Amino acid sequence: MTADLIGRLREVVGPSGLISDPGEMAGYLTDWRNAYTGTAAAVVRPGSTEEVAGVVALCREAGVAVVPQGGNTGLCGGAIPDSSGRQVVLSLTRMRRIRDLDAANQTITVEAGAVLQSVQEAAAAAGRLFPLSLGAQGSCTIGGNLATNAGGTGVLRYGTTRDLTLGLEVVLPDGRVWNGLRGLRKDNTGYDLKQLFIGAEGTLGVITAAVLKLFPAVRSRATAWVALPGPQAAVDLIGVLRGLAGDRLTGFEIMSRQSVELVLRHSSGARDPFGDRHPWYALVELSDSLPVAGLDGVIESALGEAFEHGLVVDAVVAANPAQAAALWALREGISEAQNHEGPSLKHDVTVPVSRIPAFVEGTDRALEGAVPGIRIVTYGHIGDGNLHYNLSKPVGSGDEEFRARAGALARVIYDSTRAFDGSISAEHGLGQSKRGIIADYKDSLELDLMRGLKQLFDPRGLMNPGKLL
Amino acid sequence: MTADLIGRLREVVGPSGLISDPGEMAGYLTDWRNAYTGTAAAVVRPGSTEEVAGVVALCREAGVAVVPQGGNTGLCGGAIPDSSGRQVVLSLTRMRRIRDLDAANQTITVEAGAVLQSVQEAAAAAGRLFPLSLGAQGSCTIGGNLATNAGGTGVLRYGTTRDLTLGLEVVLPDGRVWNGLRGLRKDNTGYDLKQLFIGAEGTLGVITAAVLKLFPAVRSRATAWVALPGPQAAVDLIGVLRGLAGDRLTGFEIMSRQSVELVLRHSSGARDPFGDRHPWYALVELSDSLPVAGLDGVIESALGEAFEHGLVVDAVVAANPAQAAALWALREGISEAQNHEGPSLKHDVTVPVSRIPAFVEGTDRALEGAVPGIRIVTYGHIGDGNLHYNLSKPVGSGDEEFRARAGALARVIYDSTRAFDGSISAEHGLGQSKRGIIADYKDSLELDLMRGLKQLFDPRGLMNPGKLL
Repeated sequence: MTADLIGRLREVVGPSGLISDPGEMAGYLTDWRNAYTGTAAAVVRPGSTEEVAGVVALCREAGVAVVPQGGNTGLCGGAIPDSSGRQVVLSLTRMRRIRDLDAANQTITVEAGAVLQSVQEAAAAAGRLFPLSLGAQGSCTIGGNLATNAGGTGVLRYGTTRDLTLGLEVVLPDGRVWNGLRGLRKDNTGYDLKQLFIGAEGTLGVITAAVLKLFPAVRSRATAWVALPGPQAAVDLIGVLRGLAGDRLTGFEIMSRQSVELVLRHSSGARDPFGDRHPWYALVELSDSLPVAGLDGVIESALGEAFEHGLVVDAVVAANPAQAAALWALREGISEAQNHEGPSLKHDVTVPVSRIPAFVEGTDRALEGAVPGIRIVTYGHIGDGNLHYNLSKPVGSGDEEFRARAGALARVIYDSTRAFDGSISAEHGLGQSKRGIIADYKDSLELDLMRGLKQLFDPRGLMNPGKLL
Repeated sequence: MTADLIGRLREVVGPSGLISDPGEMAGYLTDWRNAYTGTAAAVVRPGSTEEVAGVVALCREAGVAVVPQGGNTGLCGGAIPDSSGRQVVLSLTRMRRIRDLDAANQTITVEAGAVLQSVQEAAAAAGRLFPLSLGAQGSCTIGGNLATNAGGTGVLRYGTTRDLTLGLEVVLPDGRVWNGLRGLRKDNTGYDLKQLFIGAEGTLGVITAAVLKLFPAVRSRATAWVALPGPQAAVDLIGVLRGLAGDRLTGFEIMSRQSVELVLRHSSGARDPFGDRHPWYALVELSDSLPVAGLDGVIESALGEAFEHGLVVDAVVAANPAQAAALWALREGISEAQNHEGPSLKHDVTVPVSRIPAFVEGTDRALEGAVPGIRIVTYGHIGDGNLHYNLSKPVGSGDEEFRARAGALARVIYDSTRAFDGSISAEHGLGQSKRGIIADYKDSLELDLMRGLKQLFDPRGLMNPGKLL
């Protein structure tokens, strides 16, 4: 039966589009962090929407589950098959064409397997900006970004992947192809079906292409590194910056001293911009489409005003792109630096921006109560209310002992997030990792409606089963 | 049975919350243009979400359909009951509280019956902008804006109502209340249910409250009136403006000479800003959160560049707010002025911005072929690809003769819209008016999926039946 299916799949995708050798399949069966591993009957790599539809139809007929996969850079195991060996991994990586770029309409039409960075580059070549930007951009695919509604550093100004999407093409679980590739900014002719597939982690169908929004290119930038007394000052500083710079405020990241300390210790060439230690830091970026926009003046006025109100203790404005890059390196080095300190327990949560200060205070206190001496590495996109609440063991304690507490510590953070009306997954999705606990944090009515939608679109449960729901 | 239901509804909403006298009901049974009229068993005006849930549950038990209604300013009859006299109109107008305004989170939480202008004013009082802006803002409600995914003049920069929404509270067709009032910019924990209710015209449930996004207040503005050789120049001018001004470009409306001519003829005080006649005009607005933003300089540079490329024939920049208001009055007077010229056949369509020039040329030619001498009053939010393609009879011909051609002329415009990958309803929805013809313009697979969703949420078909689907 499986051999028969594999033969028929090979007819659809061609010999080079099907992998069944265990060695060659390995890269598709384990995520990049080695956190999740599965097995599969085959990996198929269709080259067109029609081939995807053919694969889905054949698998449906055979009662075999399909696991869509993009660049395999997810953090929750959403694109990794189970261990039954009966599932088929559907990799979109051969479908990477940029089908169209319409500069006047400010849209780009791309296939699901296009790598995010290639989309950014195509937009830039046309004098436009595709603003989705995240660490994995050199290998993650647009299809994966859509399936997980990816966020990243541009959300503050440009929104998440959902906000950047005008149209989709989707292969439904029954093999039919929905062509919703509309490049329209306004279309009120019924339910907005594309919204269902964005963020659904491949459980309602396979996204094969999308029409995405473009923006005017950025032509000037100002970057500052700021020392703050605490998270409340950070929230107030956002208010001061928005009041003066409006939507020129395109980046606002905060980092606890603990976070920066790890980078200074482990990253070669990292240097503290200030002589003194401060409890919290912010990285501020303004940007503009005008080549000469006076952004340095705006950022200096805003920081001056903030200093007078006691929100800012010290600040430095980058004098050139190299200095700006060095400041961003301090922020981007945190995750890597933390790996030198033993196991790193990662949590990705949001609360309303206004509640960040009380949330951080309450969560820190609860964590320190649970594990005295725990090192709390808090940083993230605070302008979106998004914090990466990462934890390292107390100095001198054992790795295994700390790992054993992982579940209990996650509960501490998630319970606190719920108490502050937040979400336990800001931008990483649920995948396999949070699928089990989401029921404890989401309204049962909402889970009911989600199950109804899953049943409506995928009554046989063959589309990425065991993920999200 | 009906009398019994009315008695029980009165118990839920109180005596002042139920209207059954035909005279008092009249205002709820006819739309503001007198285009649609229905009858009803009663009009209920609940004062709270719990009361809405009670009304919906009682009607469901009795097998009686519910027609949700906001400010009754819709253009497609979506909030008007049928003529059976058995339906219950559920007016949200008593639920108009602003529940919360969180300046740091840039959000406002409002009840569905809040009038749009009151939301704008509450935001302004907190130094913020709620950017949804449209002609009916003094009487339309947020619930209606959400149910129809309203557009208006701010879409170019800020998006439609959907883009402005972070969370919803909804009474489901079975009377359960879904509390999705989250004020989060990032939340990837499953299907984004709120998207289903936005733009669903009350067919999947009753929206009772929403969390909406706020933006930095606008502190400076520049406005220009521009003469253009044709629609292609308008599209190219948008490109020039975006290249220099980026997202400061917050308004870009075009008008055919025919449109402006009618305003000059019928609006008292209207004055042509130019001595010569020109085939097309654009109204351009730049705005900024900075109080001193140099916008006049930016708009003059952009228009100078456009003039050199032959895109602009003449232009005037408003020297003060009164002049800007006079320019906007020329644009806003079109609809009213057209009423003086006999029946006005209105169509609200979008195509991709880049296709506007060919679309206008092809559609005009087809209309003139169908009715020689027809007067084509084309204007709209061309930055979003949205044109109001309105028609007036040839000079000297009869009203009835022209009205008799309404269906055929609509087909000419909609067929052309489809040929250019557009939508036959940009911002007005389907309601009763386009419900019959949408099947000719939408993919049958998409209609299938829509019917499946309707069946899932409202299996008894009691939630605003006869609308949208």
